[in-house]
Amino acid sequence: MPRYKILVEYDGTGFVGWQRQKNGLSIQESIETAVEAVVGYDVRIHGAGRTDAGVHARGQVAHFDLNTEFSPDTVRDAINFHLKPAPIAILQARQASDQFHARFDAIERRYKYVINSRRAPLTLDRHHHWHVAVPLDAEQMSEAASLLEGTHDFTTFRAAECQAQSPIKTLTEARVRRWGSAIELSVRAPSFLHHQVRSIAGTLKLVGEGKWHPGDVREALEAKDRSACGPVAPARGLSLEAILYPDDP
Amino acid sequence: MPRYKILVEYDGTGFVGWQRQKNGLSIQESIETAVEAVVGYDVRIHGAGRTDAGVHARGQVAHFDLNTEFSPDTVRDAINFHLKPAPIAILQARQASDQFHARFDAIERRYKYVINSRRAPLTLDRHHHWHVAVPLDAEQMSEAASLLEGTHDFTTFRAAECQAQSPIKTLTEARVRRWGSAIELSVRAPSFLHHQVRSIAGTLKLVGEGKWHPGDVREALEAKDRSACGPVAPARGLSLEAILYPDDP
Repeated sequence: MPRYKILVEYDGTGFVGWQRQKNGLSIQESIETAVEAVVGYDVRIHGAGRTDAGVHARGQVAHFDLNTEFSPDTVRDAINFHLKPAPIAILQARQASDQFHARFDAIERRYKYVINSRRAPLTLDRHHHWHVAVPLDAEQMSEAASLLEGTHDFTTFRAAECQAQSPIKTLTEARVRRWGSAIELSVRAPSFLHHQVRSIAGTLKLVGEGKWHPGDVREALEAKDRSACGPVAPARGLSLEAILYPDDP
Repeated sequence: MPRYKILVEYDGTGFVGWQRQKNGLSIQESIETAVEAVVGYDVRIHGAGRTDAGVHARGQVAHFDLNTEFSPDTVRDAINFHLKPAPIAILQARQASDQFHARFDAIERRYKYVINSRRAPLTLDRHHHWHVAVPLDAEQMSEAASLLEGTHDFTTFRAAECQAQSPIKTLTEARVRRWGSAIELSVRAPSFLHHQVRSIAGTLKLVGEGKWHPGDVREALEAKDRSACGPVAPARGLSLEAILYPDDP
């Protein structure tokens, strides 16, 4: 049973998210259907991160087993052929060890959240940025983000339905940069709580608007109380950028 | 009759282009309809550049006259309100002199063409990049592009239906840069021939593939013959980035 590791990019607009669900088409189901069209039997795809409905990815990772061996390039091209015209693509495929697990072996996850702060509605970026029609102070947002770096109880920034055993997570990086009207939040951590990045983005937006001071974010964190969080930012601004493994070059 | 100058951004996907046409919805008609919804009478919008069907803009400029005066911010917001949900936005509006003409006063136009060179199909960028599934040599493309800079007879890179009086144009800049798998061609000129940028992009792709040497591009230029041109690159990779005027700050 050869095991394959794939690097996946997708436009999450219109999908119910990564995970297979009964109420709509998921990324996982789309890839499973494509793989089954290639090999002729049922295949279960295991993703590293369960992105929500509308969330995008430039660096999702997944694994699956096949009954017979194919070259990795054939696996990539054949799945891509059957994925068309869905906006999902296998960027790379390679054979992995039988022990490799996309989710449990990951040592770091990287997400990007983009807020586009301008008066006019968005056009080219409307599905990939969160439009905020008021000016935002990126320097204040950057200061607030840095207060969240490190190991903390992130209960405040955790969805009610989060299934993680512990609310304690280590945010390795939380950086804010401005590119024109786009304010980009980059975060890195070994793992995240459900809605953690979108909760942070929604809270930083309050800081950018001047409704909160950076110190209020620290207080919200220390409150360990979901109701102390700002509103959860919309899915469309979020993208899973990369997942790292111990054996990465 | 106050005259207004507007800066316009749009996702050209699904439109018949800038100019009003009988066979589908144009950007011009969309904006005219929105302005008419604001003021209650017919208004003619004059654009600086006639982008083709499927071509995008981050910096189109246009002008129009109203019968009564409104604040520029009101003009911008009211048009944007009526443009919804079309992916067209007025980024700025300001009052201009009665003599201002968006098309005839422009002193420089800037376009960007993005080729995405990778094996896998595109997802997030599928409407905004030209997908080329083979590797391209950006350095060779850059060298070829630089041979087109300056004042030349661009007959080779001109559509049969081009209405310009002369095929002689001055390409102020033609620069190629690589960002990951994206190869970006930036061009600047006082004005362009019809399909000039897409003809250049399609020809540079042949150089990137190694089918042409940079010197072949110079020969094609010197041939002054449409049939010496590479295939015209698809509209979706092209974006009108900026238009400059003598009184710009």
